[in-house]
Amino acid sequence: MSIPSSTPDPLAVALDAKRIAELIEARFPQIQSGRRFAIEEVGHRSARVRMTANPRNTRPGGTISGPAMFTLADFGTYVAIIATLGEGGFEAVTSSLNINFLARPEAGDMIAAVKLIRLGRRLAVGEVELYAQGVAEMVAHATAAYALPIAR
Amino acid sequence: MSIPSSTPDPLAVALDAKRIAELIEARFPQIQSGRRFAIEEVGHRSARVRMTANPRNTRPGGTISGPAMFTLADFGTYVAIIATLGEGGFEAVTSSLNINFLARPEAGDMIAAVKLIRLGRRLAVGEVELYAQGVAEMVAHATAAYALPIAR
Amino acid sequence: MSIPSSTPDPLAVALDAKRIAELIEARFPQIQSGRRFAIEEVGHRSARVRMTANPRNTRPGGTISGPAMFTLADFGTYVAIIATLGEGGFEAVTSSLNINFLARPEAGDMIAAVKLIRLGRRLAVGEVELYAQGVAEMVAHATAAYALPIAR
Amino acid sequence: MSIPSSTPDPLAVALDAKRIAELIEARFPQIQSGRRFAIEEVGHRSARVRMTANPRNTRPGGTISGPAMFTLADFGTYVAIIATLGEGGFEAVTSSLNINFLARPEAGDMIAAVKLIRLGRRLAVGEVELYAQGVAEMVAHATAAYALPIAR
Repeated sequence: MSIPSSTPDPLAVALDAKRIAELIEARFPQIQSGRRFAIEEVGHRSARVRMTANPRNTRPGGTISGPAMFTLADFGTYVAIIATLGEGGFEAVTSSLNINFLARPEAGDMIAAVKLIRLGRRLAVGEVELYAQGVAEMVAHATAAYALPIAR
Repeated sequence: MSIPSSTPDPLAVALDAKRIAELIEARFPQIQSGRRFAIEEVGHRSARVRMTANPRNTRPGGTISGPAMFTLADFGTYVAIIATLGEGGFEAVTSSLNINFLARPEAGDMIAAVKLIRLGRRLAVGEVELYAQGVAEMVAHATAAYALPIAR
Repeated sequence: MSIPSSTPDPLAVALDAKRIAELIEARFPQIQSGRRFAIEEVGHRSARVRMTANPRNTRPGGTISGPAMFTLADFGTYVAIIATLGEGGFEAVTSSLNINFLARPEAGDMIAAVKLIRLGRRLAVGEVELYAQGVAEMVAHATAAYALPIAR
Repeated sequence: MSIPSSTPDPLAVALDAKRIAELIEARFPQIQSGRRFAIEEVGHRSARVRMTANPRNTRPGGTISGPAMFTLADFGTYVAIIATLGEGGFEAVTSSLNINFLARPEAGDMIAAVKLIRLGRRLAVGEVELYAQGVAEMVAHATAAYALPIAR
């Protein structure tokens, strides 16, 4: 017996990666300036986002700046919330973020792998692992709490 | 050709779970009082520790207190450091800990699953997932930084 | 023209220290067991709470345990919320806590000085300085976020 | 009797604000690009740094971005470490940072008031209050831990 197509899938994403990128570009053109971020994949309560190598993000010695990693962790969590909640997720705002820097990456692309470990009515918490392109060892780890819009 | 038995295994644990429990009992008898913690498993850079149900840890409504979860996350990271570094790890001291509470657990046993995501010369960072016995959803998430003894 | 006495004072506390202690004792008898905590002072968005010296809180070498300091920081923030919001504040629950350990205190009384640096509709954030009795240098610093009850 | 000029003052700064700004400009020209930061004041274990209003830092609705606030908190702590330790402080690297967002500031200048609450041999911890120019209410609060260079 097939599952009727009208059955909502609780694990489906509300918006796909391409649509999220378009909406972010329209709302926050300054975030994407220089095409800094690429949303590689979204899932229910998850996202993978790439930050492309960029002279603005590097430091002497060829490493990636801490603020750039913060930005990627924060943005990746935001994308996972929007993928899961849909357009209402755009109203979410960061209430706190904690980041541990673990290793010095080479300058280059970075990837954020995000899981939402809490998705309550009022608060979402993302856990973020940051990697340098092609390197197995984790570079930084963050947890980010977002206050969610009330009427959802 | 077999690997000679004298070759050190970089992924071996320095101390096993039973030996760590004995050493902790000898050094910190107050931690174990009431047999609160059981070290279930240790690995290279990892540990799984159980906190047994205990009236002292519960709150009205039958949930587990935040301080009890903090204690478990902190202790679990300490065990993972000792398992990896050996007796020198006993000198490690917590320098910071960040914890997010995700869901209200029922009173009962809790399990901490710890991975060391940084193990530098001076600083170790543990990532800790806390679960209630038999429940898939994560109850709390912590990251703990430990200052390591200098001469190791 | 004098201000009529019926004008509410926005900076008044909703409950005083003695009343808060009575209500906590009634609701959470296990917290106060052994008379561990004394609420020394409360104000609008602030509290000062003492944790009395206790063998359970000490570690070899005569220092105070990290979990005991966590407990004091968490409890102190809770008291400041109740002092400011009144009995509704009892429904507040910790959503995250970050603590930095700065110095090793001698075993003895500890004092938490708490300020609420955010008091929104849904979230309160306390900033906590922990001191050892009679020592000027700060021993630990914490920030604690509490989810507030909805209908207030 | 006058104090001989060779007596070191334990509370003196190792480098003044002007000299720190010159050295940072020479080492990290990209940080200062657009003259984003002004070091207003440094002291023993303290600093006050201004981030000037900048279209890159703003978000729709005219507020300042979270990553910009992170950058200011991180940079302000770095300045306080250099002011206190001298040129050796340039080798310090952020090991973790925790930030709580408290209120939405209007777009405009922001000020970071930094105190070093720990200055050990291996680790410094800065406590940072962020304010919008001319507004009494705190906008964000951060604690930042820095690993210090070994040979100092």
